Amino acid sequence: MSESILKNHIKNYTDLSEEELTKVLSFFDCQSLKKKETLLTTNKPCNKLFFVTKGCLQLYFIDDLGYKKTTQFALENWWLTDFLAFQNQKESNFIIEAVEHSNVLSISYAKYQELLNTFPSLNIYFRNIYETAYGASLMRLKYINSYSKEEMYFRFQEEFPEFVQRVPQYLLASFLGLTPEYLSEIKKNRFS
Amino acid sequence: MSESILKNHIKNYTDLSEEELTKVLSFFDCQSLKKKETLLTTNKPCNKLFFVTKGCLQLYFIDDLGYKKTTQFALENWWLTDFLAFQNQKESNFIIEAVEHSNVLSISYAKYQELLNTFPSLNIYFRNIYETAYGASLMRLKYINSYSKEEMYFRFQEEFPEFVQRVPQYLLASFLGLTPEYLSEIKKNRFS
Repeated sequence: MSESILKNHIKNYTDLSEEELTKVLSFFDCQSLKKKETLLTTNKPCNKLFFVTKGCLQLYFIDDLGYKKTTQFALENWWLTDFLAFQNQKESNFIIEAVEHSNVLSISYAKYQELLNTFPSLNIYFRNIYETAYGASLMRLKYINSYSKEEMYFRFQEEFPEFVQRVPQYLLASFLGLTPEYLSEIKKNRFS
Repeated sequence: MSESILKNHIKNYTDLSEEELTKVLSFFDCQSLKKKETLLTTNKPCNKLFFVTKGCLQLYFIDDLGYKKTTQFALENWWLTDFLAFQNQKESNFIIEAVEHSNVLSISYAKYQELLNTFPSLNIYFRNIYETAYGASLMRLKYINSYSKEEMYFRFQEEFPEFVQRVPQYLLASFLGLTPEYLSEIKKNRFS
């Protein structure tokens, strides 16, 4: 089941055969994670890239005051890691944790390189994935500079209603740079 | 001269021959831009991808109060466009303008697709470029959530001293989300 999700995702971008896709999948490990289970921690080499087949992951760091600050979420069909650390085989600047019970496919840096060498057409797939992700992050930076935190929340709710339903409110607050109390306040004022 | 910069950049990631690289270059147009000349505007289809061979470009938008807000800069060896709009062939959400006299290579969306089909190994090149760019944008989001605007400036100055020297201070202020006056104040206090 987990595996067919990645197969179908790759099929959207490449013409790899079913047999080749099965070989692609053999490069990955399946992991089932409990809620709050950690996949990656800071100050240790970032050696894994993750693909979510079920559930939700968060990429976060802990600020000087001890608060968790969420930089990115990943739902089904999303790739997640500290990409800069992964690419340079450096220590991770982020922690990755399961927001809810999740299934992921993981691949080591060495296997990822071997995979791309064995199936060069996967570069087409990942080129598209990262082109979209980078484009989306530029739009996110635009939103951060355009909207108040309150407006960000309502815009987010409008664009990703399913996501707002699924993610605990304290995590959504962290992602939007709000305190959970302020988010409650915003929501209360909206509906009062 | 402009062309050899892109050739050398691609050589770092692929094993395309000199002859093939010359063919790659034939897909691009060379443009020489005066300071403040515009390459891309909002509300028009985003049909071009740019590679800077000399100078500096800025990707910005104008907020509701009429202020220019810089989302990204591109120096030599950087690619720039509104990637999400380019990929989906939608209207641009950003303006791209030359910060100083600049030379760029530009390619249309149709030519970019044709280029990637003709030289599939360029997917390796762009996969690496976008993987790095996306990773860097996650780090930037971390910085935005970690540092005060004042700390951001000093960190930026420490990591990219050449860049801080080259870019006009009012643009740097816009990039860091400061008013030019506040940036002057920060610098004055630092050296007083």
